[in-house]
Amino acid sequence: MTAVELIEKKRDGGTLSDEEIRWLIRAYTADEVADYQMAAMLMAIFHHGLSVEELAVWAEAMLHSGDTLDFSDITAPKVDKHSTGGVGDKVSIALAPMVAACGVAVPMMSGRGLGHTGGTLDKLEAIPGFRTQVDPSEFHHLLKTIGMVMGGQTETLVPADRRLYALRDVTGTVPSIPLISSSIMSKKLAEDIDALVLDVKVGRGAFMKQEDQARILAETMVGIGSHHDTEVVALLTAMDEPLGTAVGNANETAECIELLKGDAPPDITEITFRLAEEMLVLGGVADSLEDARMQLEATITDGTALEKLEQVIVAQDGDPAVLEDYSLLPQPPQFVELEAPREGWVTMCDARRIGVAGVQLGGGRLRKEDEVDPAVGIWVFAKEGEQVEQGEPLARVGWRHGDRLGAAMEILEDAWAIGDEAPEPKPLIMGKVR
Amino acid sequence: MTAVELIEKKRDGGTLSDEEIRWLIRAYTADEVADYQMAAMLMAIFHHGLSVEELAVWAEAMLHSGDTLDFSDITAPKVDKHSTGGVGDKVSIALAPMVAACGVAVPMMSGRGLGHTGGTLDKLEAIPGFRTQVDPSEFHHLLKTIGMVMGGQTETLVPADRRLYALRDVTGTVPSIPLISSSIMSKKLAEDIDALVLDVKVGRGAFMKQEDQARILAETMVGIGSHHDTEVVALLTAMDEPLGTAVGNANETAECIELLKGDAPPDITEITFRLAEEMLVLGGVADSLEDARMQLEATITDGTALEKLEQVIVAQDGDPAVLEDYSLLPQPPQFVELEAPREGWVTMCDARRIGVAGVQLGGGRLRKEDEVDPAVGIWVFAKEGEQVEQGEPLARVGWRHGDRLGAAMEILEDAWAIGDEAPEPKPLIMGKVR
Repeated sequence: MTAVELIEKKRDGGTLSDEEIRWLIRAYTADEVADYQMAAMLMAIFHHGLSVEELAVWAEAMLHSGDTLDFSDITAPKVDKHSTGGVGDKVSIALAPMVAACGVAVPMMSGRGLGHTGGTLDKLEAIPGFRTQVDPSEFHHLLKTIGMVMGGQTETLVPADRRLYALRDVTGTVPSIPLISSSIMSKKLAEDIDALVLDVKVGRGAFMKQEDQARILAETMVGIGSHHDTEVVALLTAMDEPLGTAVGNANETAECIELLKGDAPPDITEITFRLAEEMLVLGGVADSLEDARMQLEATITDGTALEKLEQVIVAQDGDPAVLEDYSLLPQPPQFVELEAPREGWVTMCDARRIGVAGVQLGGGRLRKEDEVDPAVGIWVFAKEGEQVEQGEPLARVGWRHGDRLGAAMEILEDAWAIGDEAPEPKPLIMGKVR
Repeated sequence: MTAVELIEKKRDGGTLSDEEIRWLIRAYTADEVADYQMAAMLMAIFHHGLSVEELAVWAEAMLHSGDTLDFSDITAPKVDKHSTGGVGDKVSIALAPMVAACGVAVPMMSGRGLGHTGGTLDKLEAIPGFRTQVDPSEFHHLLKTIGMVMGGQTETLVPADRRLYALRDVTGTVPSIPLISSSIMSKKLAEDIDALVLDVKVGRGAFMKQEDQARILAETMVGIGSHHDTEVVALLTAMDEPLGTAVGNANETAECIELLKGDAPPDITEITFRLAEEMLVLGGVADSLEDARMQLEATITDGTALEKLEQVIVAQDGDPAVLEDYSLLPQPPQFVELEAPREGWVTMCDARRIGVAGVQLGGGRLRKEDEVDPAVGIWVFAKEGEQVEQGEPLARVGWRHGDRLGAAMEILEDAWAIGDEAPEPKPLIMGKVR
């Protein structure tokens, strides 16, 4: 078997055999297939796709390219959640403690900000002292004792994805449904979970702009899970405007704490509950979504979800005092407000532009090696469908460097549109795939 | 401008601007664009092609990636010939002296065997002492004084092609018309020629199996020439069966010498004349193809073509005695004959299989680093349309190593088909594109 033969087969629209796919992923991980050969293969896959069977084997081969976790001694059901990435999407930090407080273990391995979308690790690191690097034995211990853990991916897990992900980024092969879905699913399935809930974002601020494409992605990932005997439920959720008020790192973390106190905006609260409900049902601790919602609401009212987050922060060396005093989180040195240029109805509040502006402020990375500034951020006051007066603040911007503020404000000015009539309300949850 | 932006543009079927193409080729040659990025670009081009304008700029950019030759002080018209590669295709070694003897300078930079097809350099090196490595100043001097030179490509000429060619070979991106045509044309145009004749092979033994594909390739290359203000004529010629009798290195060289004495088989003689006629007309030394043929025939009858070859052999350190004594060329130590299994008409004499068998014997390379055995080869006695008796030799095989003979004979046994009726005769020259 040679790499060229397999590339030619896929280039001409052929189907790779199980053996060929396993050989390719193994040989690539072992450096026997060169990056330039895999780049040609990825571009061929971009054009011809992978069949359901090819994709299942591809994801499995990636999953087995390195270590996998073994949580078989943990009796609690293990369910994780993954989002395809959005703006203001701080769901994980509130969801995991709520779900864990209901008795479902959440082995959450998170990522960093990518493009204009934020990353859970960056947000958590806004908590003074919080350590996201957790080695496998500690990860296991925390999951067993606390019922949740929030860390980064370890080096030895799914090494094929680490290389493929970096290669796709520099070869124009990122937006390919089989490549996206196998990347996500191989990492999640390596976590030894019983079930998985996917939040597949759709809209201006998402990688998938169109619902039909997002649905295909969701179905593809559910299919990979099914081949792996892991139950997967995907919700298609709106990402035209940011979720909640906060876009940044420290401010998003604060909003999560607010959520656990029952004080967060309705959209971020609702989506967190909906995803958590699915996890409880999949984990078998709730009979129905309604039952799950009652249990989850109880974790807010009785404070057990907040306690769970406190336990995690303490275990991962963070300062739990932030839970009561948000001023202990990094604060932007200066603020400026973006005012509505006219009165009317907000017809657009563009998540992508707001996300890009957040990156410009320093809240994300323009280059891979950039450090993230946890303090800066955007507070979004006027969302789609809201009525505003002329001069009313649309957003508040917390900034540190003037040049970066300039770039951010230029983008933000185009992020809102104000019209004469109220727009049609759009649903937050657009569909469910299982 | 970044490589990823350009890859994404081509990936999505877009058109690259002149500036983008020039940047890409320059940056790739300068190692600023990585092989894996170019591999993804090549696979995107495989799927979406290049427009006529893109291709013209692409070929020009390749041509200018290194040194170009300057023969402006040579007053003779400069015309070269290029073949897309066939089996038994020894045209160049006879054609160049004939054309040069008519007053057209032929700056022939040749290649080595590729796959199952032979290469002029390998054939020339069968002549004891013959040196195919000719540096630019000697190349210039020989072209000026003798009117022809036959050497390999220099390192500094079209470095972009050298890298792209090697990359295509290992990334499954060889059979792409824009990539094939820009590779050929950039190298030929760098020779500072006034005009070019292309021999585009069609059939079982050619890279292009179908006439329509070959015609597109021919039109594409003629188009690149036209953008470069260089007149190009392409003949589409049959490559279902080998040309002439000899397939190998020493035996093909001997057949070329025979051709210059007027004693070669009709097919190889005819195709050599037809290509040479076009060169004389393009070079302006003949008014018509008929006029050209008369001049070319005179170079055979008066011996000036053979003298020209002798001059070149002497200048390039070869032993000119081979012209009269073919036994000075390397001889295979042993021979075996392949006999017709039945009587009838030869309906197939498969150039590809015979070419592959020649490589197996050691006449070509199984791996890049292999040395070529100049002595071994195949003498093809029965071509398509000929009647044979049972047991009559179809071919004679000159061999050195028994294991290699075994592999070659296994392939050769399937290279002939004998039927009950004479097949329809097929034309040797299938068309002309200009």
